[in-house]
Amino acid sequence: ATVDKGVDFAQYFCTYAFLYHQKEMLSDRVRMDAYYNAIFQNKHHFQGKTVLDVGTGSGILAIWSAQAGARKVYAVEATKMTEHARTLVAANNLQDVVEVIEGSMEEVTLPEKVDVIISEWMGYFLLRESMFDSVICARDRWLKPTGVISSLARVIYGLISGDDDIRYPSHARMWMAPIRSGLGDKKINDYEGAMDDWYSFVKETKTVYGVDMSVLTKPFSEEQKKYYLQAKNAIKFMQTSMWSNLHPQQVIGTAAAVKEIDCSTDTVDDILKVRSTILSSITGGCTRLCGFGGWFDVHFRGSKEDPAQKEIELTTAPSIDNGTHWGQQVFLFYPPISVSEGDNLNVSFSMNRSKENHRLMDIELSGEIKQSSGEALPSFRNRFYVE
Amino acid sequence: ATVDKGVDFAQYFCTYAFLYHQKEMLSDRVRMDAYYNAIFQNKHHFQGKTVLDVGTGSGILAIWSAQAGARKVYAVEATKMTEHARTLVAANNLQDVVEVIEGSMEEVTLPEKVDVIISEWMGYFLLRESMFDSVICARDRWLKPTGVISSLARVIYGLISGDDDIRYPSHARMWMAPIRSGLGDKKINDYEGAMDDWYSFVKETKTVYGVDMSVLTKPFSEEQKKYYLQAKNAIKFMQTSMWSNLHPQQVIGTAAAVKEIDCSTDTVDDILKVRSTILSSITGGCTRLCGFGGWFDVHFRGSKEDPAQKEIELTTAPSIDNGTHWGQQVFLFYPPISVSEGDNLNVSFSMNRSKENHRLMDIELSGEIKQSSGEALPSFRNRFYVE
Ligand SMILES: Nc1ncnc2c1ncn2[C@@H]1O[C@H](CSCC[C@H](N)C(=O)O)[C@@H](O)[C@H]1O
Ligand SMILES: Nc1ncnc2c1ncn2[C@@H]1O[C@H](CSCC[C@H](N)C(=O)O)[C@@H](O)[C@H]1O
Repeated sequence: ATVDKGVDFAQYFCTYAFLYHQKEMLSDRVRMDAYYNAIFQNKHHFQGKTVLDVGTGSGILAIWSAQAGARKVYAVEATKMTEHARTLVAANNLQDVVEVIEGSMEEVTLPEKVDVIISEWMGYFLLRESMFDSVICARDRWLKPTGVISSLARVIYGLISGDDDIRYPSHARMWMAPIRSGLGDKKINDYEGAMDDWYSFVKETKTVYGVDMSVLTKPFSEEQKKYYLQAKNAIKFMQTSMWSNLHPQQVIGTAAAVKEIDCSTDTVDDILKVRSTILSSITGGCTRLCGFGGWFDVHFRGSKEDPAQKEIELTTAPSIDNGTHWGQQVFLFYPPISVSEGDNLNVSFSMNRSKENHRLMDIELSGEIKQSSGEALPSFRNRFYVE
Repeated sequence: ATVDKGVDFAQYFCTYAFLYHQKEMLSDRVRMDAYYNAIFQNKHHFQGKTVLDVGTGSGILAIWSAQAGARKVYAVEATKMTEHARTLVAANNLQDVVEVIEGSMEEVTLPEKVDVIISEWMGYFLLRESMFDSVICARDRWLKPTGVISSLARVIYGLISGDDDIRYPSHARMWMAPIRSGLGDKKINDYEGAMDDWYSFVKETKTVYGVDMSVLTKPFSEEQKKYYLQAKNAIKFMQTSMWSNLHPQQVIGTAAAVKEIDCSTDTVDDILKVRSTILSSITGGCTRLCGFGGWFDVHFRGSKEDPAQKEIELTTAPSIDNGTHWGQQVFLFYPPISVSEGDNLNVSFSMNRSKENHRLMDIELSGEIKQSSGEALPSFRNRFYVE
């Protein structure tokens, strides 16, 4: 799978070249607190060390690393954001410690190997953007055999290591849980509104202009269904997953981890495809299963030899007060399925990179529901596009 | 200027392949009434005639032409909308008269020359989309020397003729008038809101996370100014014109015709560039000149030898009850200029096709205001992008 660099820049990197977008991440307090605490409550990982920040953006993680006592920080960024990062480094008087390097991680050359890799690489539902590939590449090329990876970007810190002797048991996890949600109703309402509108249009066109359009009702309905209920740029019958900031009470069953990543050892092959079985049971009363919510968390725990003084977790799970800009990805079923407490879901989860764009994901959810009575509901199979 | 066909299909034709978009035009009562009346109140132009509909879309104008008595109608359409047009023609029992042909007007071959060309080719501010080129091409290739062009598409009918003997004095006109508008204030408010937000972000980042971001205030402000006040994809200092449905009272001075098109005789060269001088005087009290509004009208008047039995006009001028989906294009000045009754504007207007996309337009407005007292206000020069 070769990636056209020009297309990748136009489609992926372009947004990161705007301060507006960097500010959005810098304003995410949950994200910021997690990285900040991971660094400043574990200064021993930085003091006197050489650090690499993969995708430095505004330079924030590089600056914190320097403030925590790093000897040298290499801050690599693919976009022109480097100009602002350099300005910021100088304004905070760290130009002797932080060296901002413009280029893609895969292509730049560093003057030396590093002790620590720090990065904020997490996309929606963890793996969207496929940026972790670049961190793996940096680890394999630039981390000293004894180096620590503090991949905190939306907080992973100390997750990866090039050397099996020094273990960093930190990891990232992807979660899925059954949810209820009004988003599907809203979409169906919008679709039905468009159809109501169509019917009066057909009536009027016949009465006022003498042309019968009713024969186009079916194709119009199909076009609108596609628009409201399916992905725009994907193959038929594939829906687009949606961003949502779920309330914890919208989660109607137990959450299942669909993937654990060991950032010290996992390779690109380990994250290319995700296959898992979601076992979940419905909790609390009768309700409507409207689909699934997906989120992630990442941890910094250091290594056995050099553990974190303070373990930090960054979670993007549904939360009342601690929402993040990642929110959750929501995968909707049409129509919803009636379920009750104790019903058991057995769903096979499969995620691949989209063929058209390696930074986007195709997801399939297929499975069945066994009611607590023992009876099985009709099985389902739904495909989604994380765009 | 060669045009890449694939790019043109991806950027221009794609929207027309959706019934949703065709329906938007079909629901524009002002547009529909004008075409309907132009056809059915001038049936003598259609009875027993051969008609070509350039860009038939859903097929509506071809169907009306047939219903008005045409012997044969060729309905040419570049997109897959042809499938729906064919269905519609059959459902209205006109398959023996209307022949739907899929292809671009520039490339298709008709079995015969035609008596009448009908088309709805008008884009925002008349010439956006540059579709009139295709009508000119059709006229020069397929209209009988004695043929009538009823180019009503957003109503031009009987505008063009391949032969000087038969004159069709119908025409299309572009108008510009000084306006006041809250749109500019809204944009400036949005921009100022974004900056307020930035200042509290800078303060918080310093206090909570120990990093001083104030040095990025200037580049952030420039980025936001560009976003809110300028065109996204155009060169610096070029603003995007906006769609608006102006109230007639927002027009604060006399309107000036910046272009008249004789559809019988004008060539592509005649519409490639538009150069004009807008002379306008402010009417009614003290007010703010916020910029200019642009719109168009088109006429069907037939020819001297074969005049329309009923002359029809389709205007997209500001209107309380008869707004169209074209609305008006608004060209804003920042900041607004205080003007009073009797002040005279002398503005040179220049419009070219955009270098990047021949279907979009670059417009320059430069000029001065002479107050009724005789004093001149500072001159201005603004560039816009009709995207
Ligand atoms: N392969 C690669 N090489 C260099 N930069 C990359 C990259 N892949 C992604 N990036 C950059 O990584 C950044 C990720 S966003 C995180 C920015 C910053 N570290 C912060 O935490 O606020 C973006 O600015 C993006 O342009
Ligand atoms: N060069 C060309 N060849 C064929 N079709 C064209 C064309 N340029 C534009 N069109 C088509 O012309 C249509 C213009 S919109 C008008 C549609 C219809 N005549 C109506 O009045 O409702 C679009 O469907 C567009 O796809």
